[in-house]
Amino acid sequence: MDEHLHEFATEPRTSDEKIKMQNRLKRIEGQVRGIQKMIDEDRYCIDILIQISAIQSALKNVGYSVTERHMKHCVTDAIEKGEGAESIEELMAVLKQFSK
Amino acid sequence: MDEHLHEFATEPRTSDEKIKMQNRLKRIEGQVRGIQKMIDEDRYCIDILIQISAIQSALKNVGYSVTERHMKHCVTDAIEKGEGAESIEELMAVLKQFSK
Amino acid sequence: MDEHLHEFATEPRTSDEKIKMQNRLKRIEGQVRGIQKMIDEDRYCIDILIQISAIQSALKNVGYSVTERHMKHCVTDAIEKGEGAESIEELMAVLKQFSK
Amino acid sequence: MDEHLHEFATEPRTSDEKIKMQNRLKRIEGQVRGIQKMIDEDRYCIDILIQISAIQSALKNVGYSVTERHMKHCVTDAIEKGEGAESIEELMAVLKQFSK
Repeated sequence: MDEHLHEFATEPRTSDEKIKMQNRLKRIEGQVRGIQKMIDEDRYCIDILIQISAIQSALKNVGYSVTERHMKHCVTDAIEKGEGAESIEELMAVLKQFSK
Repeated sequence: MDEHLHEFATEPRTSDEKIKMQNRLKRIEGQVRGIQKMIDEDRYCIDILIQISAIQSALKNVGYSVTERHMKHCVTDAIEKGEGAESIEELMAVLKQFSK
Repeated sequence: MDEHLHEFATEPRTSDEKIKMQNRLKRIEGQVRGIQKMIDEDRYCIDILIQISAIQSALKNVGYSVTERHMKHCVTDAIEKGEGAESIEELMAVLKQFSK
Repeated sequence: MDEHLHEFATEPRTSDEKIKMQNRLKRIEGQVRGIQKMIDEDRYCIDILIQISAIQSALKNVGYSVTERHMKHCVTDAIEKGEGAESIEELMAVLKQFSK
């Protein structure tokens, strides 16, 4: 991790932001547990795939929120300090991995 | 769910298969909790995105295992009974959703 | 290519199927040329990205059609001959690559 | 298109940038024509899918180049003028569509 530009968010998340994010992640955690139950009950593969796809979609949306906040704070700050290129390249590298 | 061809897996998963799958899903559940901790600690967005991308990848692999098993059991059974088309179309519909 | 199970489609495509597929591919080819023109005219990046995304989507749909036909002919044939596993594994390998 | 923030790239592409981009797009155009030939010759579906997947990957890379340039010029300019939020939101909207 120390190879990244920062260790912490440039601007700390507000407690409201944290609560919303935690709620989304708890819901995802619950969906993952739901799949464990479906496996246990030998549920039909197609129903399991649909659930996995719902989790993928929820995770992607969390990723988009994190990306947007990152651009509005960390990348914006870097650009204002004239250090935008490095920050943009760091983000691009993770976006490429993300959409794999 | 009743709109799908089956409610349960055509051939029940063996207990070995179930254990392996549950272990993978528990690891994913742990990774989702890990992100909650990262949010709480205001960790750097890029590190959070990398973690989300790791979960996406692990979930995709679970999806592939489920898909492969589904083809080898449910779809194969349907084809042997001369009812392949319906089963293939059902799978295609979920694959399209999956890769979104 | 010789590492794959076949060199040709198990069941030749009908001329109707071929025409439809060629039309879709010609449209995609035209869309790719359209982007070349947009680059030349220095069009706005966002408009270019939207066009690229439209091509991705059209290509994905061609891929789905090929996959569905493959399952309904080649994979079905293999299963009926009791050689389903190999054919399913071959398809899974390409699906994993496809959704990257 | 008039609903986007600009009609043209904020900073015109250099002729070197244009040539490189055109070459990549011409190669992609050639790959799309290659698939038309494969369809005509009734080539094996798996080989066609592998080619489609190669085009997807090449297009994605073009998309990443356009995105990176967009961030380094248009978004950076917008941020420096204090109009970053709108520009970032516009980019996020297209990224969401892109990774579908």
